[in-house]
Amino acid sequence: MRALELRAYDGRPESFAVIDRPDPHPGPGQVLVRVAASPINPSDLAFLNGLYGFKKPLPTIPGFEGSGTVIESGPGLMSRYLKGKRVACTAADPKISGGMWAEYVVTSAQLCIPLDDKMNLDQAAMMLVNPITAWAMVDEARRANDRALVQTAAASALGRMIIRLCKRFQMPLINVVRRAEQVELLKREGSEHVLNSEDPGFDSALRELARGLGASLALDAVAGELTGRVLRAQPKQSRMLIYGALSMSAAQVDPGSLVFEGKKVEGFWLSQWLAQQSFPKKILLSRRIQRLLDSDLRSDIRAKVPLEQAAAAIREYASNMTAGKILITP
Amino acid sequence: MRALELRAYDGRPESFAVIDRPDPHPGPGQVLVRVAASPINPSDLAFLNGLYGFKKPLPTIPGFEGSGTVIESGPGLMSRYLKGKRVACTAADPKISGGMWAEYVVTSAQLCIPLDDKMNLDQAAMMLVNPITAWAMVDEARRANDRALVQTAAASALGRMIIRLCKRFQMPLINVVRRAEQVELLKREGSEHVLNSEDPGFDSALRELARGLGASLALDAVAGELTGRVLRAQPKQSRMLIYGALSMSAAQVDPGSLVFEGKKVEGFWLSQWLAQQSFPKKILLSRRIQRLLDSDLRSDIRAKVPLEQAAAAIREYASNMTAGKILITP
Repeated sequence: MRALELRAYDGRPESFAVIDRPDPHPGPGQVLVRVAASPINPSDLAFLNGLYGFKKPLPTIPGFEGSGTVIESGPGLMSRYLKGKRVACTAADPKISGGMWAEYVVTSAQLCIPLDDKMNLDQAAMMLVNPITAWAMVDEARRANDRALVQTAAASALGRMIIRLCKRFQMPLINVVRRAEQVELLKREGSEHVLNSEDPGFDSALRELARGLGASLALDAVAGELTGRVLRAQPKQSRMLIYGALSMSAAQVDPGSLVFEGKKVEGFWLSQWLAQQSFPKKILLSRRIQRLLDSDLRSDIRAKVPLEQAAAAIREYASNMTAGKILITP
Repeated sequence: MRALELRAYDGRPESFAVIDRPDPHPGPGQVLVRVAASPINPSDLAFLNGLYGFKKPLPTIPGFEGSGTVIESGPGLMSRYLKGKRVACTAADPKISGGMWAEYVVTSAQLCIPLDDKMNLDQAAMMLVNPITAWAMVDEARRANDRALVQTAAASALGRMIIRLCKRFQMPLINVVRRAEQVELLKREGSEHVLNSEDPGFDSALRELARGLGASLALDAVAGELTGRVLRAQPKQSRMLIYGALSMSAAQVDPGSLVFEGKKVEGFWLSQWLAQQSFPKKILLSRRIQRLLDSDLRSDIRAKVPLEQAAAAIREYASNMTAGKILITP
């Protein structure tokens, strides 16, 4: 099979090559999926640069999520049930040796979700990472009775899913972006509260909004200095969930926010969150997510490229993450 | 009365002056205390520099805790009960206008603890801030079933109380200090695990110890870069309680520790913690603390100075906080 091979965790173009590899075969509890499409996500970029939560032994095939058809199954009830079915699946697990940027992938049947018949394989390829993360974090706010939310990187694909879910659940949301055109974009799409962290009046405007609305939960994908600025603006006893680090730097947290205002900083990791959910809850969730995949949880697609253009597409995506997803179609 | 007046929150020597002020008088629920002794604490230094959780209107009298005798009481059951008694008390509350670095202070009866007859007024002056903070944080670890603790600023007065309490409760403790002589000091006093954060092998040594012992709770008084180094070393799902910021800089927290390892960063503030305790619990606590004040919870005293030498004493203490407490005796 053809596959994109990663040879070093350094993010350099020379560290990728499209090669021929022997076709993999599924073991017990596993399935072989013929890959239809797989997006490039920020978590893939982190993995390529050795900044994700785990590394796989090199050389390896990257690509954390995608869609396809199960064409072979190893022993096991779940894996045999999936044979012939179209699925969304993930390889974001250190126990799965290969990834989705190849013609075929072997993954665990546990990491596959069978798709409804009418589900489009392009949207289904992006069903796991962003939609479930967005759903889980907004759900967290609803369960904890937070009156309002604030989020950074609001113009990202994930940020815009959060915007649409908050509208659905009538949860007030403050959106923080880093460029003037992102303010325009989100306002045009109907967001009421959009602030640019590069504006001179940002900190006081955010403080007034966050305390006025009671934004006691913040979702942060940026880290660095922005984490502390948002936390300082939130009302007392607030929490911040960090789920990404687009700034590639340490979160800078003012001790006074923690000590004198009782605020807390935590992390959110989809894999960890999923592992904590029961099997029936996962089934329910996958149905809900599929139902919203053409509306609230849809992703914009910028381009679809073959494996041979994957390295260039990764550079292109890394330079601008808000212009829509790039799908690799092996 | 004679008092040390603070005129600006800038920590400059010119911002203090010893002056004559009219004697204050207690209102309802308040008492007038003739001050016997009051220590200089790190929290006082933070207040003088405008870095504490609140500011009082200027000019004001600093000094957060101390001991003395109640010589006058305003209307109210508690305040009348305290008349003539020796007490430990605090003025670390934005509703109390003056502080302890004066001949007399008016404070709330709620913020006074009557002392046993044999209690020494010097040790009692330091009974509230450090001993209760140390007790509360070690108690938190015991309640949460943490297997072991790690603490920064371990050679401070508070750090050494934590060392003695951990010994009493057989809780393994990793001590982090910043100077070689502090390593010597703590080892001489019987601490088993003492690491110097300036040593080249610090991070890997801390990681090995913290994961080996299961130090899932960290107590941090330093903040800055050290917060992130300690958090990184702790086992997965650990918590960090920040209770001070001796480095005077933002806590730098690696997003990977939060996201991929499920760690959390919170703050500890004595005033907040005390406000959450019931009245019977506070009484029980004050008895326990007094019983341990000559042993586990004792503070070393470096010097006792009159009000006139307070400004010099503050500079001296700020330049070396581990050589014992300086008491101001108005």
